[in-house]
Amino acid sequence: MTRCVFCEEAGGEILWEDDYCRVVWAYEHDYPGLCRVIWDRHVGEMTALEPAERSHVMKVVFATEQALISVVAPDKVNLASLGNQVPHVHWHVIPRFRDDPHFPNSIWGQKLRQDGHPLPADFALHMRRALDEALKSRR
Amino acid sequence: MTRCVFCEEAGGEILWEDDYCRVVWAYEHDYPGLCRVIWDRHVGEMTALEPAERSHVMKVVFATEQALISVVAPDKVNLASLGNQVPHVHWHVIPRFRDDPHFPNSIWGQKLRQDGHPLPADFALHMRRALDEALKSRR
Repeated sequence: MTRCVFCEEAGGEILWEDDYCRVVWAYEHDYPGLCRVIWDRHVGEMTALEPAERSHVMKVVFATEQALISVVAPDKVNLASLGNQVPHVHWHVIPRFRDDPHFPNSIWGQKLRQDGHPLPADFALHMRRALDEALKSRR
Repeated sequence: MTRCVFCEEAGGEILWEDDYCRVVWAYEHDYPGLCRVIWDRHVGEMTALEPAERSHVMKVVFATEQALISVVAPDKVNLASLGNQVPHVHWHVIPRFRDDPHFPNSIWGQKLRQDGHPLPADFALHMRRALDEALKSRR
């Protein structure tokens, strides 16, 4: 069986988690605010989850989008669940800025600039608070 | 006001629609099976929609994923809502194959092969049937 990085590792610093999934701060160099929502169980496609599980993932994805909007005020948020390299359900939640390395291309497209858009101080602290606030009544 | 292509055009051949959104067959050359789910109203981010509207979009996105799995049997499905170029909520639902032009890269990444994976005959007909089947009880 092929080893799966999201089965073996958290995938970053955990900002929020429950019994089903986790939100991690991924420390991507060009995208310092990039977070991932990772389903704990090894499942390849969203439609391989039960409908209630899918709704739960998306609630957490949208809470992460909302937290990023309030904490870093991006020009756009990008959401993507690809999994070609790691077929274990995970969502990229990416705050995008007009001056970031690839904007308006996708972060996987042609790079146009060098430096990532800087994060505010205490990013993780503010994200934890915003996620707790958004998700406390929804678990 | 900037003109928005998804306000002015269907964005492809409509495979399914209701009063809120549409599923279109986008005719992308390298990705002949690529479909898009487009919210009719001009809204920039998923979290700018009401929670019930978000759930509705995602139901249609997952129905499109399921329809693509049954009609073209892809190796992976990619889901993405980016909107850096067109900030009007739309989802790319992309059937991916090991022999497609970018696999395992994202379709916005480095191209590795020339030809798109061919579609089965009557793709649109089968997609329409699968979408009607999946969504008839969910509107």
